[in-house]
Amino acid sequence: MKKPTIKDIAKTLNISPSTVSRALSARPGVSDELRRKVIETAEELGYMKNLSAQTLKNSKSKIIGIVAFDIRNPFFLDFLKGVEDVLFPREYKILLSNADENIDKERTYLNWLISQGVEGILSSPISEKNGRSNLKLYRDFYKMGVPIVFYDRMFHNQEQFDYVVVDNQDAIIQALMHLKENGHENIGIFLSKKGIFTIEERLKGFFKGCKLLNIPVKREWICEDIYPHEKTFEVLKNLKDTNNLPTAIIATNNNITKYIVYYARKLDIKIPDEVSLIGFDDTPENELIDPPLTTVKQPILEIGKISSTALLSRIEDRYTLPMRVTLKAELIERESVKCIKI
Amino acid sequence: MKKPTIKDIAKTLNISPSTVSRALSARPGVSDELRRKVIETAEELGYMKNLSAQTLKNSKSKIIGIVAFDIRNPFFLDFLKGVEDVLFPREYKILLSNADENIDKERTYLNWLISQGVEGILSSPISEKNGRSNLKLYRDFYKMGVPIVFYDRMFHNQEQFDYVVVDNQDAIIQALMHLKENGHENIGIFLSKKGIFTIEERLKGFFKGCKLLNIPVKREWICEDIYPHEKTFEVLKNLKDTNNLPTAIIATNNNITKYIVYYARKLDIKIPDEVSLIGFDDTPENELIDPPLTTVKQPILEIGKISSTALLSRIEDRYTLPMRVTLKAELIERESVKCIKI
Repeated sequence: MKKPTIKDIAKTLNISPSTVSRALSARPGVSDELRRKVIETAEELGYMKNLSAQTLKNSKSKIIGIVAFDIRNPFFLDFLKGVEDVLFPREYKILLSNADENIDKERTYLNWLISQGVEGILSSPISEKNGRSNLKLYRDFYKMGVPIVFYDRMFHNQEQFDYVVVDNQDAIIQALMHLKENGHENIGIFLSKKGIFTIEERLKGFFKGCKLLNIPVKREWICEDIYPHEKTFEVLKNLKDTNNLPTAIIATNNNITKYIVYYARKLDIKIPDEVSLIGFDDTPENELIDPPLTTVKQPILEIGKISSTALLSRIEDRYTLPMRVTLKAELIERESVKCIKI
Repeated sequence: MKKPTIKDIAKTLNISPSTVSRALSARPGVSDELRRKVIETAEELGYMKNLSAQTLKNSKSKIIGIVAFDIRNPFFLDFLKGVEDVLFPREYKILLSNADENIDKERTYLNWLISQGVEGILSSPISEKNGRSNLKLYRDFYKMGVPIVFYDRMFHNQEQFDYVVVDNQDAIIQALMHLKENGHENIGIFLSKKGIFTIEERLKGFFKGCKLLNIPVKREWICEDIYPHEKTFEVLKNLKDTNNLPTAIIATNNNITKYIVYYARKLDIKIPDEVSLIGFDDTPENELIDPPLTTVKQPILEIGKISSTALLSRIEDRYTLPMRVTLKAELIERESVKCIKI
């Protein structure tokens, strides 16, 4: 039998193929009711499989799968707590996996989770600098009706998916505004592994913010692909050795933040006297570090609570429109930014 | 039918009941071979159930259950990484649960894990100050042949169980020795929730070490049951207000360590000039804190690797003698202990 296409669905419902495609990818211009009809028809014709009945070994497993991008990241302390707080009273369990920023490992785990019969998946999809990712697999899962909610990371232009992320561009713009207010115009940004959704967004925010605030952008102060994070040392050393330190640095994750403080000390670069620093991801220790760190704080516990709540809703009703949640980060002012206004 | 007893097993094998009891609880004086025979007979007679065949829904689920005492504790970053490193190549998955230091929640999760058909369980058993725990349930699981390895915490005098813990008494004695070498004789200890295995062990180590090193023990410097950890504030304030600060404090977990640094600053108690501090559980931030913290470091990654390896061995062969592993903690010297020797 021929594999059904979008045209077949359109014909059956007597609507245009572009409307079908719009409905399936959850783009605007299609009513909730029509979208539901399109998905049902797509299932009837075999274009989408209703996994909950067919493929999942046990649709009432009461297990959800979590794909962590790197289980050693302190992000997961609050995130897992937020998720568990929502799941425990509802008697859902967590099957935990760890992609270690590796798309092959991510794919292996995704397939395991499915064959294990999880009812849904919370994932922070990995993407590599060459653009490789498991997007195709996620789209297949979507077609098969597997409830998936992305947290922390997502894919652009894939609006059929549910997600809960932070406004990463705005987070960096907040940091830039604070630096500008304190007289800084020579600002560097230290970025983690290239390709990662959040890191790319933070870089976009940097460009956007510099333009908005009229801050000159200097190529050599955009330090990309610092991964593994220990590479922070050479980047910092190189800037110092060439007498080219900016007056302020924005770090873009918790590890780079720590390494900047650590290596600045080793290299005898005084924070904030020589270089001001804004860290990313607040941990309780940031208050205790010398100097106490001004930091962008993400609402991580909330990401966990909201994404798991969204996943449970999606498990209950796979026809509703995608839940696309963007949370705002907050700048916590402490003592690592020096006012250099004259 | 009458429920079989230890006497029935003894009669069948023509050995004494005390030998049977010795073999079942893995006490010394019974050969490996005899122990195996006793367990097999106990199963044949129905005294112990062979769960892997009877009760577990799916003995080849390739899932192990983890009971975390508190998922928000940074302990779990390294621990879960260590476990996952061992399990991933062997295609085992993790069903994660979080007891939140609550024995009722622990019991609920344990029952869920079993009904989910996990092949084995890694657990850090909770115990309350009134002595309550889920020991009976764990013993039932043992009788049913559920492979269980305790990590970080265990039960005393229950030698049938496998465990991987740290020598907590020695850890505190190391801290005391370092303080004594630096001239300290007025030493306090800040302890977390009463009843927790590791905390009780650290207190025992404190008494033992003080006796060994001839350090006077002062009741009001043994600050117990600081839980929730924010209570550190009142304890510290009370010591200061009554003009009764020791010259050094040993913290007994990572949260109390952080709170001591935090509240000492609020209360204008200078570390290490007024009070020296030895923290517990090393995190990368301890190097960056003002002052850099001298800390007892537990080999947490190794606890994860060894306990999961032990669990996989136990799953493969439930007859071998219990694996009882005690790892040594290490003192990392930094700058929070002042030498006050005259």
